[in-house]
Amino acid sequence: MDRSDYRSWLTIPTRWNDNDVYGHVNNVEYLAFFDTTINHHLISSGALDIHRGSVIGLCIESHCSYAAPLTFPESVEAGLGVSKLGHSSVRYEIGLFPAGRPEPAANGYFVHVFVDRETRRPVEIPSRLRSVLEALR
Amino acid sequence: MDRSDYRSWLTIPTRWNDNDVYGHVNNVEYLAFFDTTINHHLISSGALDIHRGSVIGLCIESHCSYAAPLTFPESVEAGLGVSKLGHSSVRYEIGLFPAGRPEPAANGYFVHVFVDRETRRPVEIPSRLRSVLEALR
Amino acid sequence: MDRSDYRSWLTIPTRWNDNDVYGHVNNVEYLAFFDTTINHHLISSGALDIHRGSVIGLCIESHCSYAAPLTFPESVEAGLGVSKLGHSSVRYEIGLFPAGRPEPAANGYFVHVFVDRETRRPVEIPSRLRSVLEALR
Amino acid sequence: MDRSDYRSWLTIPTRWNDNDVYGHVNNVEYLAFFDTTINHHLISSGALDIHRGSVIGLCIESHCSYAAPLTFPESVEAGLGVSKLGHSSVRYEIGLFPAGRPEPAANGYFVHVFVDRETRRPVEIPSRLRSVLEALR
Repeated sequence: MDRSDYRSWLTIPTRWNDNDVYGHVNNVEYLAFFDTTINHHLISSGALDIHRGSVIGLCIESHCSYAAPLTFPESVEAGLGVSKLGHSSVRYEIGLFPAGRPEPAANGYFVHVFVDRETRRPVEIPSRLRSVLEALR
Repeated sequence: MDRSDYRSWLTIPTRWNDNDVYGHVNNVEYLAFFDTTINHHLISSGALDIHRGSVIGLCIESHCSYAAPLTFPESVEAGLGVSKLGHSSVRYEIGLFPAGRPEPAANGYFVHVFVDRETRRPVEIPSRLRSVLEALR
Repeated sequence: MDRSDYRSWLTIPTRWNDNDVYGHVNNVEYLAFFDTTINHHLISSGALDIHRGSVIGLCIESHCSYAAPLTFPESVEAGLGVSKLGHSSVRYEIGLFPAGRPEPAANGYFVHVFVDRETRRPVEIPSRLRSVLEALR
Repeated sequence: MDRSDYRSWLTIPTRWNDNDVYGHVNNVEYLAFFDTTINHHLISSGALDIHRGSVIGLCIESHCSYAAPLTFPESVEAGLGVSKLGHSSVRYEIGLFPAGRPEPAANGYFVHVFVDRETRRPVEIPSRLRSVLEALR
């Protein structure tokens, strides 16, 4: 996938402690970038209220393919799209690009199931959230 | 996969800041548990020297399926096995179990390619490392 | 301060991604060890319920002096004590020791103010919590 | 200290997993913001080469006073200054401000001792690095 495959973008500066002993951003942090990209989009578009909303998104699957290193202090441009949208779950596609470069450092996917905050049982995706997700297809 | 499918075990206590806003260990930390389990085994068995060894392992792919929550302060029992062993790469299988329970909270895989520390080009897996990986099959 | 100055102990294994680019546990993680040691003790002694309790502890000050490096995969033995106990706040003293060694890698302090979960206003420390804190003096 | 006391600024967006179970950025992450602000400035001004430089900075003391919560997805504006500059060490002052607000969420200090990368013994601060640090007073 290339940059044109993504619908929304977030710039994420790396942090000093993202680097591991081999001098590059640790593989685990890439998943933190996925998580941050997705939740940032949902919150800033008004589709998710992490403090008081009755519906929350839980991660049930994640995958990442790593193509090139990232190094502090460079920034990452994270592209976001949606490839599957079901009754109560959604699969996002994410691409992480070193700032200003055409080739991704990594790409992967992340599956959210939306659940009731109290019971933690799956629920139908609320309409406002669904329209935000539809716009990412 | 159940507990009998794994060859090596590591107990990982959770930490306060593993918890996210929804009160459970964040999905990203599960990948840190994978990473820690693998590298702990390689280092403690003398197969990897992260400070001076000429060969290092870089993650090129990771996957996690989440089945149940984990919560601080419980501990995780991480099982480790190897499902594919090639010329320069290995695929590990990892299961994360809440301490003392039979059902996994998550399972996934993680692919290391072994490279020369300086050139970062793939190399044949050294014999000592290979025998440690073979024992995990 | 030496080992005899602490009243409660917790063993914390390091993780792969605690290491930074210089090959040692990053300074930030030491504070995560403080946080984990304190909350682990309060939760396991029944003095704090992080999910449903009406009183929660917020950090208002932290300090750490670093004396020696820690390196994955070694474990840390964290000693905990209380040096000041007020109406609504407490100052903990923490020492981090490489497993089995007499000299600390770091020591520091951490101040909790206890607040009402909803209003986030300081409250008098509840009696059960106070007795757990008294026992750490 | 207020905004006029700082000489250099860095904007740090928060991340999803900075939040803890109480719904705000965990106290530990504030120290990661300190660390990132300092190293970002040293690297981008050409005073520190974390991969090949013969002199590296190790943290020997850190302190943070917390005044107000930070919450994902808001950004932090981190101000940086230098209050003491010795033969081989420097004390930085850092203020963390919620983006666009006059009052700090936290302020603190952080002491670096500069050492030889191989021997890890203190060295005199090199002249280029010293002039970058002088400019932060």
